[in-house]
Amino acid sequence: MKTKERAIEEKICPLEFAVNAISGKWKVPIVWRINEGEKRPSEILRGITKVDRRVLNQQLKELEQAGILQKASFNELPPRVEYSLTPLGDKLVEVLWKLNAWGETLLETSIKKDK
Amino acid sequence: MKTKERAIEEKICPLEFAVNAISGKWKVPIVWRINEGEKRPSEILRGITKVDRRVLNQQLKELEQAGILQKASFNELPPRVEYSLTPLGDKLVEVLWKLNAWGETLLETSIKKDK
Repeated sequence: MKTKERAIEEKICPLEFAVNAISGKWKVPIVWRINEGEKRPSEILRGITKVDRRVLNQQLKELEQAGILQKASFNELPPRVEYSLTPLGDKLVEVLWKLNAWGETLLETSIKKDK
Repeated sequence: MKTKERAIEEKICPLEFAVNAISGKWKVPIVWRINEGEKRPSEILRGITKVDRRVLNQQLKELEQAGILQKASFNELPPRVEYSLTPLGDKLVEVLWKLNAWGETLLETSIKKDK
């Protein structure tokens, strides 16, 4: 079924749609790292040590299909692949900064509670 | 282990902490509905038909422990329980509005791709 039909039938609200798009386990960290200039899967793997290559590739593929990342393949030896944020991805990062600021407040609140 | 120690040990960044706090399956819809004035669990259940009562109660409890919701119990017959957003919860809703706006763009992009 096409996205629009699905959106109408299941009454997908944009917020749900957004949360679904970024709720894969490593998607937020991946977007964050690419925003920080880590373009190649091998660099991202070094940064997020808990994720394996196969899962990373799957998440990168889904983020590309969602229009958040774009992939550039360079026909070199060895072949080189680089990811970057699309304009939609850039906008997501802006929202993630706001969520990060909220997370700081949440973290402070939790620390106070622990004391 | 206390939150602060855990934050240091696992190098929790505020964004990860924020994403974890809201990544329970129904947490975003629950916060959204409470923001829209549905205070009682029975009202929330009518709005989110796919969630069962036990799961809802668990998610409400976690949101309360995180400091996002506050619970008020009224000693009536039958007993009445109402949830509302804390100031931290209000701030989360502000971020969710930004995520909602991003979701609209994402949805439009997906619809264009389907055509």
